[in-house]
Amino acid sequence: MKLYTYFRASSPFRVRIALNLKGIDYEPVFVHLVKAEQRSEAYLAENPLGLVPTLVDGGETIIESTAIIEYLEETHPEPSLLPGTALDRARIREMAQLVACEMQPLNNLSVVRYVKDALGVDQEASDTWYRHWIARGFEALETLVGRYGGTDGYCYGDTITMADLYMIPQMYNAHRADCDVSGYPNLTRIEAKLYEHPAIDAARPENQPDAV
Amino acid sequence: MKLYTYFRASSPFRVRIALNLKGIDYEPVFVHLVKAEQRSEAYLAENPLGLVPTLVDGGETIIESTAIIEYLEETHPEPSLLPGTALDRARIREMAQLVACEMQPLNNLSVVRYVKDALGVDQEASDTWYRHWIARGFEALETLVGRYGGTDGYCYGDTITMADLYMIPQMYNAHRADCDVSGYPNLTRIEAKLYEHPAIDAARPENQPDAV
Repeated sequence: MKLYTYFRASSPFRVRIALNLKGIDYEPVFVHLVKAEQRSEAYLAENPLGLVPTLVDGGETIIESTAIIEYLEETHPEPSLLPGTALDRARIREMAQLVACEMQPLNNLSVVRYVKDALGVDQEASDTWYRHWIARGFEALETLVGRYGGTDGYCYGDTITMADLYMIPQMYNAHRADCDVSGYPNLTRIEAKLYEHPAIDAARPENQPDAV
Repeated sequence: MKLYTYFRASSPFRVRIALNLKGIDYEPVFVHLVKAEQRSEAYLAENPLGLVPTLVDGGETIIESTAIIEYLEETHPEPSLLPGTALDRARIREMAQLVACEMQPLNNLSVVRYVKDALGVDQEASDTWYRHWIARGFEALETLVGRYGGTDGYCYGDTITMADLYMIPQMYNAHRADCDVSGYPNLTRIEAKLYEHPAIDAARPENQPDAV
């Protein structure tokens, strides 16, 4: 497998965790977003949106991190990132989608750039924009984790699930943007615990070969 | 089952289509977004983000449209909205996620309001914002549908899949915002064909009891 990735982007970070947890070997291909390599003709042929990640498996291309992670779960079911009953799986997916749909899209590099450049918003208002969506999402996620997570477990129950794969990169973004995360005691406790896992530590942005 | 819905919002529209296609009876509960009913204490206890849809099944609450649709697919597998091999399912999910993550979040009522009110952007720039993300997403989706859809089929192959459930409401949004959709011949052809299906016609915003 080949994964088109950028060390700091949160969607490929999710996929790197999934690959590492499942013990799948892959070849990383680095797409430097700040140098706009995602807009090259060759890359757009793989991923018409010009976003990372893109997975190539046996010559077949898959885009969108959630589609990729569900594919890895179906083709490499152990260890399961969606364990339990249909209801358990729904609750895990709802946490992941809360990050994927209500948080990350609004903090994406291309969107923040549009806010600053096309809408002509200054740095302070752009920072407020960023933190607003982080706060709205993490307040809701903290509530859900309090409701469904184990008291000393992970986001959902006592094993690492897809929900954790989405929370960790979003928390990384929150730290980078100097967000106050003191109101999310469950999330910060789980974050510290997750980084103790070697598969997650190896997926961290600062541990990637393309980190600068 | 109970579905908290608002006639015009595109995420509950996706779920209404899934419920109708699978022939699942449900009781709609109307949440009037423009009257801010989603911010009531009672609703926030069900859905801490204050968004629609929310599904309640046997007293258990599930939020986020993708988590709900995957749950319906697992608990009511026929007719399948994710047919085929793991690769087929990945391609269907990638189209759905392209809409769910790269388009709808940026056109969401709460986000467009923030752009106008908190960022102080005028109506013209806010309209340009809206159309920019519609165009970016639909150009990519048109490419994927051209690559994987049947020439006279649906978004992916010859049956209605999860990908169609996401495209239709997003196209409804595009029409409402007077977007030029002439550059998406596959999508507009499929849109017309999908509305011929009684389950999809019944899910249309204008056919809901809360339509105004």
